[in-house]
Amino acid sequence: MKKVDHIGIAVKDLTKALPYYIDTLGLTLLGIEEVENQKVKVAFLDAGNVKLELLEPIGEDGAIAKFIEKRGEGIHHIAFGVTDIRSRMLELKEKGVNLLQDEPNLGAGGAEVAFMHPKSSFGVLYELCDKGDKENGHL
Amino acid sequence: MKKVDHIGIAVKDLTKALPYYIDTLGLTLLGIEEVENQKVKVAFLDAGNVKLELLEPIGEDGAIAKFIEKRGEGIHHIAFGVTDIRSRMLELKEKGVNLLQDEPNLGAGGAEVAFMHPKSSFGVLYELCDKGDKENGHL
Repeated sequence: MKKVDHIGIAVKDLTKALPYYIDTLGLTLLGIEEVENQKVKVAFLDAGNVKLELLEPIGEDGAIAKFIEKRGEGIHHIAFGVTDIRSRMLELKEKGVNLLQDEPNLGAGGAEVAFMHPKSSFGVLYELCDKGDKENGHL
Repeated sequence: MKKVDHIGIAVKDLTKALPYYIDTLGLTLLGIEEVENQKVKVAFLDAGNVKLELLEPIGEDGAIAKFIEKRGEGIHHIAFGVTDIRSRMLELKEKGVNLLQDEPNLGAGGAEVAFMHPKSSFGVLYELCDKGDKENGHL
């Protein structure tokens, strides 16, 4: 893992959280999009060397909705930027890491993403995030 | 806030977590130190553009010990790198942010640090981290 692409943060309501991040913390909003298969509305903020990814649940049965119900708002995951995600997933599996899926999912900005089980990672939910040649078009 | 300096992660036992971060994830260990006033043993790892700060509790009554007791191991805080921390604290207070202290504490690497209350920050514990002219000597 060579780089952290973003830090994912679960919030109940982007319209309430965004003014805090923009006006109080002084971060720049890069864009907002819905990621239907993850059941989230996503706002990316530029924190200089990394992005903050605010995640608002859509509906009540997605992973972020359940996270907020169980633990409240807060930091949800850390995403490593990778290339060739399938090879990285295979390497991790061979090292005994439990992944939450066998194939990458489609994430925000068209990236391919996969998650490592927090039980493998001492309580941290790590994401692998592969933007392929979409880097320039990604938020 | 112009930059994320590090992400703080609470772990029960550095001797168990570090091999995972070094051997499995391939991160480089930058150093280990004890921060007595915070009651933690700290390991810094190079994650490319940011550092990961693994925090093992010393004793049972520090903030990290209590965090692990309540929520288990996992991501604890996000630290923004700042300059002139007292001015940043004053600006945040004037914007209505609740800080956990009136004066900065001494953190790892001799940095001056202060925390923002998660209730001000939609569930996220943010740290301000001012290394002053200690940047080069900091892990």
